Amino acid sequence: MSKNIETFIGCDSDYRDARAVIFGAPFDSTTSYRPGTRFASRTMRMESFGLETYSLYQDKDMEEIAVFDGGDLELCFGDTPKALAQIEAFTREILADHKLPVMIGGEHLVTLGAVRAVVSQYPDLHVIHFDAHADLRDDYLGVTLSHASVMHRVWDLVGDHKIFQFGIRSGDRSEFLWGKDHVTTQKFNFNGLAEVVKPLQDKPVYFTLDLDVLDPSIFPGTGTPEAGGVGFLELLDAIQIVSKLNIVGCDLNELSPIYDQSGASTAVACKVLRELLLAIL
Amino acid sequence: MSKNIETFIGCDSDYRDARAVIFGAPFDSTTSYRPGTRFASRTMRMESFGLETYSLYQDKDMEEIAVFDGGDLELCFGDTPKALAQIEAFTREILADHKLPVMIGGEHLVTLGAVRAVVSQYPDLHVIHFDAHADLRDDYLGVTLSHASVMHRVWDLVGDHKIFQFGIRSGDRSEFLWGKDHVTTQKFNFNGLAEVVKPLQDKPVYFTLDLDVLDPSIFPGTGTPEAGGVGFLELLDAIQIVSKLNIVGCDLNELSPIYDQSGASTAVACKVLRELLLAIL
Amino acid sequence: MSKNIETFIGCDSDYRDARAVIFGAPFDSTTSYRPGTRFASRTMRMESFGLETYSLYQDKDMEEIAVFDGGDLELCFGDTPKALAQIEAFTREILADHKLPVMIGGEHLVTLGAVRAVVSQYPDLHVIHFDAHADLRDDYLGVTLSHASVMHRVWDLVGDHKIFQFGIRSGDRSEFLWGKDHVTTQKFNFNGLAEVVKPLQDKPVYFTLDLDVLDPSIFPGTGTPEAGGVGFLELLDAIQIVSKLNIVGCDLNELSPIYDQSGASTAVACKVLRELLLAIL
Amino acid sequence: MSKNIETFIGCDSDYRDARAVIFGAPFDSTTSYRPGTRFASRTMRMESFGLETYSLYQDKDMEEIAVFDGGDLELCFGDTPKALAQIEAFTREILADHKLPVMIGGEHLVTLGAVRAVVSQYPDLHVIHFDAHADLRDDYLGVTLSHASVMHRVWDLVGDHKIFQFGIRSGDRSEFLWGKDHVTTQKFNFNGLAEVVKPLQDKPVYFTLDLDVLDPSIFPGTGTPEAGGVGFLELLDAIQIVSKLNIVGCDLNELSPIYDQSGASTAVACKVLRELLLAIL
Amino acid sequence: MSKNIETFIGCDSDYRDARAVIFGAPFDSTTSYRPGTRFASRTMRMESFGLETYSLYQDKDMEEIAVFDGGDLELCFGDTPKALAQIEAFTREILADHKLPVMIGGEHLVTLGAVRAVVSQYPDLHVIHFDAHADLRDDYLGVTLSHASVMHRVWDLVGDHKIFQFGIRSGDRSEFLWGKDHVTTQKFNFNGLAEVVKPLQDKPVYFTLDLDVLDPSIFPGTGTPEAGGVGFLELLDAIQIVSKLNIVGCDLNELSPIYDQSGASTAVACKVLRELLLAIL
Amino acid sequence: MSKNIETFIGCDSDYRDARAVIFGAPFDSTTSYRPGTRFASRTMRMESFGLETYSLYQDKDMEEIAVFDGGDLELCFGDTPKALAQIEAFTREILADHKLPVMIGGEHLVTLGAVRAVVSQYPDLHVIHFDAHADLRDDYLGVTLSHASVMHRVWDLVGDHKIFQFGIRSGDRSEFLWGKDHVTTQKFNFNGLAEVVKPLQDKPVYFTLDLDVLDPSIFPGTGTPEAGGVGFLELLDAIQIVSKLNIVGCDLNELSPIYDQSGASTAVACKVLRELLLAIL
Repeated sequence: MSKNIETFIGCDSDYRDARAVIFGAPFDSTTSYRPGTRFASRTMRMESFGLETYSLYQDKDMEEIAVFDGGDLELCFGDTPKALAQIEAFTREILADHKLPVMIGGEHLVTLGAVRAVVSQYPDLHVIHFDAHADLRDDYLGVTLSHASVMHRVWDLVGDHKIFQFGIRSGDRSEFLWGKDHVTTQKFNFNGLAEVVKPLQDKPVYFTLDLDVLDPSIFPGTGTPEAGGVGFLELLDAIQIVSKLNIVGCDLNELSPIYDQSGASTAVACKVLRELLLAIL
Repeated sequence: MSKNIETFIGCDSDYRDARAVIFGAPFDSTTSYRPGTRFASRTMRMESFGLETYSLYQDKDMEEIAVFDGGDLELCFGDTPKALAQIEAFTREILADHKLPVMIGGEHLVTLGAVRAVVSQYPDLHVIHFDAHADLRDDYLGVTLSHASVMHRVWDLVGDHKIFQFGIRSGDRSEFLWGKDHVTTQKFNFNGLAEVVKPLQDKPVYFTLDLDVLDPSIFPGTGTPEAGGVGFLELLDAIQIVSKLNIVGCDLNELSPIYDQSGASTAVACKVLRELLLAIL
Repeated sequence: MSKNIETFIGCDSDYRDARAVIFGAPFDSTTSYRPGTRFASRTMRMESFGLETYSLYQDKDMEEIAVFDGGDLELCFGDTPKALAQIEAFTREILADHKLPVMIGGEHLVTLGAVRAVVSQYPDLHVIHFDAHADLRDDYLGVTLSHASVMHRVWDLVGDHKIFQFGIRSGDRSEFLWGKDHVTTQKFNFNGLAEVVKPLQDKPVYFTLDLDVLDPSIFPGTGTPEAGGVGFLELLDAIQIVSKLNIVGCDLNELSPIYDQSGASTAVACKVLRELLLAIL
Repeated sequence: MSKNIETFIGCDSDYRDARAVIFGAPFDSTTSYRPGTRFASRTMRMESFGLETYSLYQDKDMEEIAVFDGGDLELCFGDTPKALAQIEAFTREILADHKLPVMIGGEHLVTLGAVRAVVSQYPDLHVIHFDAHADLRDDYLGVTLSHASVMHRVWDLVGDHKIFQFGIRSGDRSEFLWGKDHVTTQKFNFNGLAEVVKPLQDKPVYFTLDLDVLDPSIFPGTGTPEAGGVGFLELLDAIQIVSKLNIVGCDLNELSPIYDQSGASTAVACKVLRELLLAIL
Repeated sequence: MSKNIETFIGCDSDYRDARAVIFGAPFDSTTSYRPGTRFASRTMRMESFGLETYSLYQDKDMEEIAVFDGGDLELCFGDTPKALAQIEAFTREILADHKLPVMIGGEHLVTLGAVRAVVSQYPDLHVIHFDAHADLRDDYLGVTLSHASVMHRVWDLVGDHKIFQFGIRSGDRSEFLWGKDHVTTQKFNFNGLAEVVKPLQDKPVYFTLDLDVLDPSIFPGTGTPEAGGVGFLELLDAIQIVSKLNIVGCDLNELSPIYDQSGASTAVACKVLRELLLAIL
Repeated sequence: MSKNIETFIGCDSDYRDARAVIFGAPFDSTTSYRPGTRFASRTMRMESFGLETYSLYQDKDMEEIAVFDGGDLELCFGDTPKALAQIEAFTREILADHKLPVMIGGEHLVTLGAVRAVVSQYPDLHVIHFDAHADLRDDYLGVTLSHASVMHRVWDLVGDHKIFQFGIRSGDRSEFLWGKDHVTTQKFNFNGLAEVVKPLQDKPVYFTLDLDVLDPSIFPGTGTPEAGGVGFLELLDAIQIVSKLNIVGCDLNELSPIYDQSGASTAVACKVLRELLLAIL
């Protein structure tokens, strides 16, 4: 008898055979409003068994692709640099084995750990960023390693005009002023996504998906719900477009199961992850 | 003083005068993921008093139609054939009295009990099926009397090309392959409904409405929420179309009050039932 | 050190400098179905810190307008005339100081207290009313000071053809029959709003916003959720139109935090209040 | 087929044969802190089916006693005198038929309606009062018909030294000062209950049981939980003692299902009601 | 990299080295009142990481004992005989390997599957049964394989005077009448446990622990909470006594995470399992 | 009109006149299991209005003592040293003004910030520590500034034999081994408290109260509930004993409102704070 193995549904590949590796980054120490995203990956893994492996949208099945589920990193709480270093190291390991890292946050700051690893291998990295919040502050209450400044930190790494934001509908005025010169921001929706991705066809792209880009009607289970978001089918369409790029790393984050009493947000997150994996692989 | 009578709002008719009989089938023993639909009928009855009897959509009032509320069947748990037999027997009784049976599930399998009764009286029965899930498996984990195979069991009774599914967005690939030859499946939405119902004008029709056809944004309180569903007003429109047919039996099912912390899903279910009764009668 | 001050986010003005005064009216004694709106104002104040002061929709910032937060009135429960008198008195005080009263309910009946004060100063008062429910009953279970008859009571004060309702989708048939001769009712949506407001350009207008005009998908946290409501962005657009009028008083009401387990409805209410203040001021 | 009848478990007697009549008084308009007790009676009725009719504590069965369940009064909200009058009228009717009224609140103020009826028939009425709160204020925020002053209002009717309170652990200092001269108050527990009831053997007694006398560990589902309360078995023992008296009316109140997420408080309330009925009858 | 392994905390032994094997039996199809125990084992596994491996009560550590966690059986829903057969088969396998089976329910009926396996190996099996409910009915609504009749079914296997029940405080009168001649029942508490176990010193004993023997104050998260139960420390003491016997199989059951909103009941269940394992091994 | 002031009930003193200053330290970045204590202070302030200012236990009233409520510190998340420095600075300010600091956590680590300030003024500081958890680890997952090592960090400041722990029932074995030589630990309860405090009569004492020392039956709303804790009245008694000492600083912490769905834990925390303030001042 072998020990009890738990994976996200359909992610049964051995590490060796896998093209992609999913893993959880259960960290939310810098969340300034409502914490709880640390529980996202384990809850998604558990609840994914309410989902089919087959997608009617894409007519593909998880059993036809090779994904390895590495479980959750054991991250410390309260020491952000240390936690980010753990994430970076694990992502490097996946990249070194020529596999696609697919991280489940956690708060959005975990993206920084993964991007550090990815950008070291792909210096010309571009970033597609779906989110309700701009996340462009230089610091939040004096803390520079903050969920609210994660895209500014990513910009530190990739530089001007490499970050493309969509769905943004909340932020400080100063963020948008700063952003104008450094990143491309599409407010409220995915308009223009098809055009934006055209020149990126031959670039390495990191795709970070803050699930709160979705409207709270379909995704209330997050720390900072922002009304006026995109719909589920709009998101699926946008993912299809992005998946045509050369994705070298990606993550989805900010599900907070504590605030998902009905379980519907977790089900949404699981379905998005399934569609994302099926689209990219 | 008479004993305490509890009915769904506006269903105050005596049995003799009633054209339709609503009753609850509180059974969810085969639910494989998240149970709780057994509480739907009693919760709807209790919460229906937050609803008006008058519908602004149809300019009709529940007080103008004659519906009898027979309460809930006392079904056993854990013996599926027995529970289905109880449902069938009660439905036969209603049909024998020339009234329309309107069942509130419970899990979707309860439909089988009612259809057994209806098909015995109307051998040329056709079935309109709104659902997120195809429910066409031949068995689930070896169990043939399962919520996941209920439409396959109904097909056993009515045969090929009598079942018309709408809104389907989840299932095993094999279900859809099998279905192609035996049932008509409209994926994702109600497109084509008006065309489908035309040739059914003079047929006896059973209408089964799995409420999870609705998007989880408006109906999170169900065992297996599936993002990407239809909207509430779309559903009302579709019900209007179906109600023009010769409906000889119907049910709505899969509300799970345990997962409806806000009560909004229960309110939706009550409103759908009101609109359904007003449309058909 | 000064005492602990709590305000709705960005409402930091001193009373003297303020153009608008927000205050809570925590009263829900006549709520006939599910109570709890008494907690709306304090919960919104507390949770508003998850919101930015800056609006990307209007490119305006709460820090650029002058709003004073007067906290919550200490209203009695169980003596409706007394509570309404307290609301009226406080509103008169604000008006006497030439400031705009912005009340957070509470159940919808609190509007009556505020309108009494406003109409005494502006006898030609017109009322814009967004709601799922007509609220036009003359009484509810014999009680004339009821949430279900608040707009009838307002009509007692302002007279025929001064009340303009939008988004209405629930009520007793008799309400609509009565309403036909006395008020203007737009069912289901905001169609015709732009036309309606044109002749009101030079009139004093009270704007009362029952948040359950929103669809329960985006606003489940209310006592009587009614499916089929307007979307969040539709509401923002409608608020923009109304805000061009000469608003001399306004309120938003019927958030019930008890039924907002995810907190998303409270976040919506906060965002609506921010947009309303930024639009009017 | 007869209409759907719902009763508290085991309360199946016809009115004519019944010795006791239970009924709900769903009113909480004066609740000053957290409302919701209006839902207690209907929730208890629904959830009582998780309870056995047989009591192992008393070796008695509900099926051996004759109790009629009259359902819930349809009380208005927002007009306290009117609601109390409805309660009084219904209680008078029960008393006129020589049956024992057993009321399920609602907030504690409903006791006043019942006591008004009972004292008119039994002028020498004594009152046994279990509660966490003294409820002896003359008014609360200027309202004399308030849950917080209900025992003062009862004292208006029965006079000095007729009220015996137990388990009291919360109140204003002034309540206790006033109480010293007018009522008998046992703080914190049931000590002295046996002695107190001795001289009451031949008196008519009204027994009012505010369930928040129980510790919140076993009864969290109430508007104002007060730690330091009595245990469940202590309460059963105290009920046994009280039940030996000549009880001419009784009630239990202050269950608030909204705050009973686990359902355990409702189960406790149901069990207390079963034990109370079995002990008295 | 190896696949993601999830075990109850401290149960890291390989199968070969293990003295005990824990496994989940996620089945609740016959639960007649409130379902949800199917989620107990996976939730306990996940939440056990809030627990220490070290017990201050026993001064022992999970890391010093060898327990293998076999995960959850994949049981069908809706076919009780089949599910019980799966449980029996798995238990037989564990026994064949000379290891102790420790099952986590599920509803109490799962005990029957395990006892069938154990009694076939130990014909003189005795059973210690902690529970709030007698579970001695011959059938429930005509179903003989029911949670409410599980101990009657166990009696079918072990015969008279082999079952010893403690903490029982609920049941039908007929159950207790029947029980008097066939089993030993200690009502309400653990009095007499020490005496009862003396003559069992050299007997094979199955220990079944329905967690609802605990008072709902400390364990509200169960389908049928029964006030008046034992305390947590009383249970630990009773477990110590039982653990001195020759335990050849055991289970704990009836945690229902759906009704454990605070998570405290799950934490209790985890702690009880830790103490049980440390005491027996 | 003055701005909206919110204080814990009865804490209305001006700063100048106050003998004690309460303030919130909303920080939980190092919480390793379930976060949420950051919301404790604001929730307690809001819910304290369900509490009376008068204590029947002590026959004292909050209106007779002078406490200033300084509100919540605005602490960063994700930078522990910075947050602790903010707490320390604020505590120093209070001490400099010869007032008693009374801090509301937050996770237990906030105690370190306060103790740093207090010990700098009272080098011979002794510490009374009520808790379920020993909190004596040197680090947790490599983080030395952790809730799990806070008492070890306090020991760094005060040295051997100055810390007295009560109610401890959980920890790593190594914590207790280390603790034996450095601190005094009373397992499970308050036995020996009276003896322990005798030699401390003339010493400056810091009192830190982790509310999870209470049993989860009465206090489920905390991150890591540990069954087997002390009762509410036991805690009140222990507070009475401690309050006779020369308390120069104190805190209570670890209420997590997210896990307190019924609100009863928050009510308990408020009552404990009231009793603590009345006892000490």
